[in-house]
Amino acid sequence: MTDSSSFTPVLPGIVPPMITPLAGLDELDHDALQRLIEHILGGGVHGLFVLGSTGEAPSLSGRLRREVVEHSVKLVKGRVPLLVGVTDTSFTEALELTRFAADQGASAVVIAPPYYFPAHQDDLKRYFTEFAAESPLPVILYNIPSHTKVDISLETAERLIEVPNIVAFKDSSGNMLFYNRLLELAARRPGFPVFMGPEELLGESVLIGGSGGVCGGANLVPSLYVEQYDAAVAGDLQRVHRLQQRLLRISSKIYGVGDAPSGYLKGLKCALSVVGLCSDRMAEPLYSLGDKKRQQIAQNLDDLELTLETSAT
Amino acid sequence: MTDSSSFTPVLPGIVPPMITPLAGLDELDHDALQRLIEHILGGGVHGLFVLGSTGEAPSLSGRLRREVVEHSVKLVKGRVPLLVGVTDTSFTEALELTRFAADQGASAVVIAPPYYFPAHQDDLKRYFTEFAAESPLPVILYNIPSHTKVDISLETAERLIEVPNIVAFKDSSGNMLFYNRLLELAARRPGFPVFMGPEELLGESVLIGGSGGVCGGANLVPSLYVEQYDAAVAGDLQRVHRLQQRLLRISSKIYGVGDAPSGYLKGLKCALSVVGLCSDRMAEPLYSLGDKKRQQIAQNLDDLELTLETSAT
Amino acid sequence: MTDSSSFTPVLPGIVPPMITPLAGLDELDHDALQRLIEHILGGGVHGLFVLGSTGEAPSLSGRLRREVVEHSVKLVKGRVPLLVGVTDTSFTEALELTRFAADQGASAVVIAPPYYFPAHQDDLKRYFTEFAAESPLPVILYNIPSHTKVDISLETAERLIEVPNIVAFKDSSGNMLFYNRLLELAARRPGFPVFMGPEELLGESVLIGGSGGVCGGANLVPSLYVEQYDAAVAGDLQRVHRLQQRLLRISSKIYGVGDAPSGYLKGLKCALSVVGLCSDRMAEPLYSLGDKKRQQIAQNLDDLELTLETSAT
Amino acid sequence: MTDSSSFTPVLPGIVPPMITPLAGLDELDHDALQRLIEHILGGGVHGLFVLGSTGEAPSLSGRLRREVVEHSVKLVKGRVPLLVGVTDTSFTEALELTRFAADQGASAVVIAPPYYFPAHQDDLKRYFTEFAAESPLPVILYNIPSHTKVDISLETAERLIEVPNIVAFKDSSGNMLFYNRLLELAARRPGFPVFMGPEELLGESVLIGGSGGVCGGANLVPSLYVEQYDAAVAGDLQRVHRLQQRLLRISSKIYGVGDAPSGYLKGLKCALSVVGLCSDRMAEPLYSLGDKKRQQIAQNLDDLELTLETSAT
Repeated sequence: MTDSSSFTPVLPGIVPPMITPLAGLDELDHDALQRLIEHILGGGVHGLFVLGSTGEAPSLSGRLRREVVEHSVKLVKGRVPLLVGVTDTSFTEALELTRFAADQGASAVVIAPPYYFPAHQDDLKRYFTEFAAESPLPVILYNIPSHTKVDISLETAERLIEVPNIVAFKDSSGNMLFYNRLLELAARRPGFPVFMGPEELLGESVLIGGSGGVCGGANLVPSLYVEQYDAAVAGDLQRVHRLQQRLLRISSKIYGVGDAPSGYLKGLKCALSVVGLCSDRMAEPLYSLGDKKRQQIAQNLDDLELTLETSAT
Repeated sequence: MTDSSSFTPVLPGIVPPMITPLAGLDELDHDALQRLIEHILGGGVHGLFVLGSTGEAPSLSGRLRREVVEHSVKLVKGRVPLLVGVTDTSFTEALELTRFAADQGASAVVIAPPYYFPAHQDDLKRYFTEFAAESPLPVILYNIPSHTKVDISLETAERLIEVPNIVAFKDSSGNMLFYNRLLELAARRPGFPVFMGPEELLGESVLIGGSGGVCGGANLVPSLYVEQYDAAVAGDLQRVHRLQQRLLRISSKIYGVGDAPSGYLKGLKCALSVVGLCSDRMAEPLYSLGDKKRQQIAQNLDDLELTLETSAT
Repeated sequence: MTDSSSFTPVLPGIVPPMITPLAGLDELDHDALQRLIEHILGGGVHGLFVLGSTGEAPSLSGRLRREVVEHSVKLVKGRVPLLVGVTDTSFTEALELTRFAADQGASAVVIAPPYYFPAHQDDLKRYFTEFAAESPLPVILYNIPSHTKVDISLETAERLIEVPNIVAFKDSSGNMLFYNRLLELAARRPGFPVFMGPEELLGESVLIGGSGGVCGGANLVPSLYVEQYDAAVAGDLQRVHRLQQRLLRISSKIYGVGDAPSGYLKGLKCALSVVGLCSDRMAEPLYSLGDKKRQQIAQNLDDLELTLETSAT
Repeated sequence: MTDSSSFTPVLPGIVPPMITPLAGLDELDHDALQRLIEHILGGGVHGLFVLGSTGEAPSLSGRLRREVVEHSVKLVKGRVPLLVGVTDTSFTEALELTRFAADQGASAVVIAPPYYFPAHQDDLKRYFTEFAAESPLPVILYNIPSHTKVDISLETAERLIEVPNIVAFKDSSGNMLFYNRLLELAARRPGFPVFMGPEELLGESVLIGGSGGVCGGANLVPSLYVEQYDAAVAGDLQRVHRLQQRLLRISSKIYGVGDAPSGYLKGLKCALSVVGLCSDRMAEPLYSLGDKKRQQIAQNLDDLELTLETSAT
């Protein structure tokens, strides 16, 4: 177990959840991986998170996940903390990927509840406590009930925040009532960040005291999310409102083109493909948007004047 | 792809979803596996299904899953068709386990929708069609929306029932409106069974025209479920009602001791442990019932007069 | 309070939930009311239920509800028991309508949980117990969680089944696991019927021991549901299967034309209008199906050969 | 229809949803009504809202609702705009209460979707458009899907915001993603407020551009919510954070004592009773908290130092 008191694997700020660029079934696109990492880090972000939901990790084979970790660590070269998603329905698989990530030199792991069997809160407490005890890397808890079918309850969070090797929380519930309560709990442990998942809530979450965001849009325009974070930390409401409008437009015009709930992922990867960062190949059971929606996204990127910024990167 | 017109991997009847007996973390209990298989087959069942939800498959490592397949095939020795659950969030992993199962000599595979990303119906159709085309074994579709967050819709089922290598359907939705519609659709393809998941609905589903059940309780008392199937096929309503009372009592007194939704699995494994078939070791993120509930289940087994029948096997 | 031991307000069988025929906003169509009642009673049903969900009761003004009760009692003339839905979010309003129904000569009232505030089970127990104590008519409990947001739990049902003035249960949950448990509980009190809501489940519910159904389709073809009930009581599986196919076709071709969840009500009223029993005027917030869907339903009625039977009545 | 261009029935700010003080079943407590109104208006609020969810309106008889309107108008005497909740499952009843409220001199009505039948969005658009056309008072739309089972969708809101007699929106979804989108839409019609329901989100909603809140806690401590509104409008983040801590403590220690989902209402009315503003009599199907929880709330009010402020009013 890491002595987390002397080590800070994650700092407040913007930690983009990187998409996984694919060249085919079970095949990583190495060139695109390099392009993406340079593009994202070029935006001034505070960390990088691979193999999250945005990285389609659950849809990737174990072999491919390890390939992503190995190459991402090499490409990031310690410029920012590298977080690795290890969520799995199997404790053993989650732990083995964690050990692999540690061996490769990752900074921390991110883990959500196992997502097949809906676990009771007592079971979740035990699961995460045992996992944190075994993990050679600091652990960030990840709440995403829309995908795991289970909320990490406030009472469970209260207990887990006190586990030494658990060092941060990421909340993708979209439930600001819950997020506010988490902030209240986390305040008891100084230096314990609580990250916001949905980027549309980044501004207000930071205004109310949050720690930053895991913003998928930062794959495309990383600097925009860093700017919004800085504006909110500075309490510059006018700038926050102006940037918020831009964030909402990106959300509508990129993520809203395909149907929910997968429209976000399909739209994001399609946009990254249009601007030339990677292909729009998805991992099954998701499939790329068709030609018509791709053209719509290309047009929307023009309207948003996003083509230029991205290609200039 | 199998020529399913000349091969019937699954027949109507009772196909118990076997629990996975564990000796420790990531460790299969081989003695218990043998005992369980002999006990279940001794009840006159029509098939055996390993690595389903009752088998806690998603919680097992890939390695352990292959171990279960390998040894189950050897122990069953072709006495009944052996079905293998291969549901996975990764298409590649599901397919590799299918190939392994085929190599070992399994009869068919059972696959539910990938259970992390909620897939659209069009994506599901494509996913299962591609999977069936690649699978060296006949494919049984498995609907369990409580765990996968997505229903296989009637329209999707209508299309998939026509895919040659898809040979049966298992419905664990508990939604009899849906099940009745499935029966209506399946009637178009003679010899296409539609199995009922929840054992409490076995009797009436067969009375209304269904094909049998995947009854977890058949790990404990296999003959009881075979009797209920036979009674319903024969239209013996009085016998069905009498056996139904017994099935409901088992459900209340074994599955209802722990809290839903995992009380079924914990209670079943606990009861199997009490009667000496295997230990009650669960795979994380589920954990065994505590001593007090175990004593309650032991008492309930006495009340149900189940100890004797089981130990006699 | 009624001495329910000496009085049987409801018997097993088919108790159609009558639609409310409207001539305009807040205006009852008296001619259609008479036609409908004669049509339904002509089918040999065992009771009539006005002001249920199918009767759009919650959408009607208090004044119009009383008008429906007054005229229905007069038209039924005691030929079958007349049940009146009194569900309301206000205890006082529910009780006043009950008293009015008693004064007019109705046989019993049907009441679901208040449907605005999601009540706790303890609150529900108290609410129904107090209501039953005040009600001058026997009380039938009605479970319809899709509309009330709350299930009457098994534990609550267990308690309420023992309240003297509560004489029957209607379950529209569509959840056969729950329905089976209700049957088990109700068996403790002889002569306590448990009616099935969704007509698609009528056959199997009676086969497994249920008491009959509150079938909306009986507004259109009352004799069909009576036949299915008789076939199931007789254990004539072949006839049940044949009639079940017809019930499912009516469900698909009439209720399935408009979008769920209101397609059932809109389709039913449209079909009744096509065959000339009443207009298709709905009560706000529901509105009639458009011309195209009306033509579809007219065509489907032809396909189902329902026009003749109905007009002959 | 009001010419809403020359009339502003609602201004941004704090508009408390008043509880309904009861003296018994179907009996208004007139003394408590007067005390409450003076207490709330003494806190500097910007409007008063009677017969909302917090006012338990759906649980009150039609007669009692009119009594509340009549007396509230007389007691408020035009000091602030008086809003009246008229949500009903019957269009006719909603409209009649609206006409009554207009005759008495209320400022505007608040209406949520009818809450029994889950309506389609097209039906909702038509319903609200027709209602707004008939209403003699300006109309405020109210989104509360937890109680009505239906979201007013963004597309529906987009259309309704353009209806002349619809003048504001209240969102109690607790979904900040939705609220942010509403703000974006409402920006197209200057002077169209979008109020926040859950008071725990008041601060951040105003920081991100919202218009104020309908805060139940303002029955107890009206000035606190006015302060938070002012702090957020001024962009004083430190003050917002400090007041937010107090709001969250009130939420935990008053609303969190009883079980969700009715714990909020029961806790609030209990606290108002402890400080002497009214009795804790609830309208069925809700019932007062028991003695033990009442003592807990009394203790918590002491901890929060709320007794004094309230009794001093």
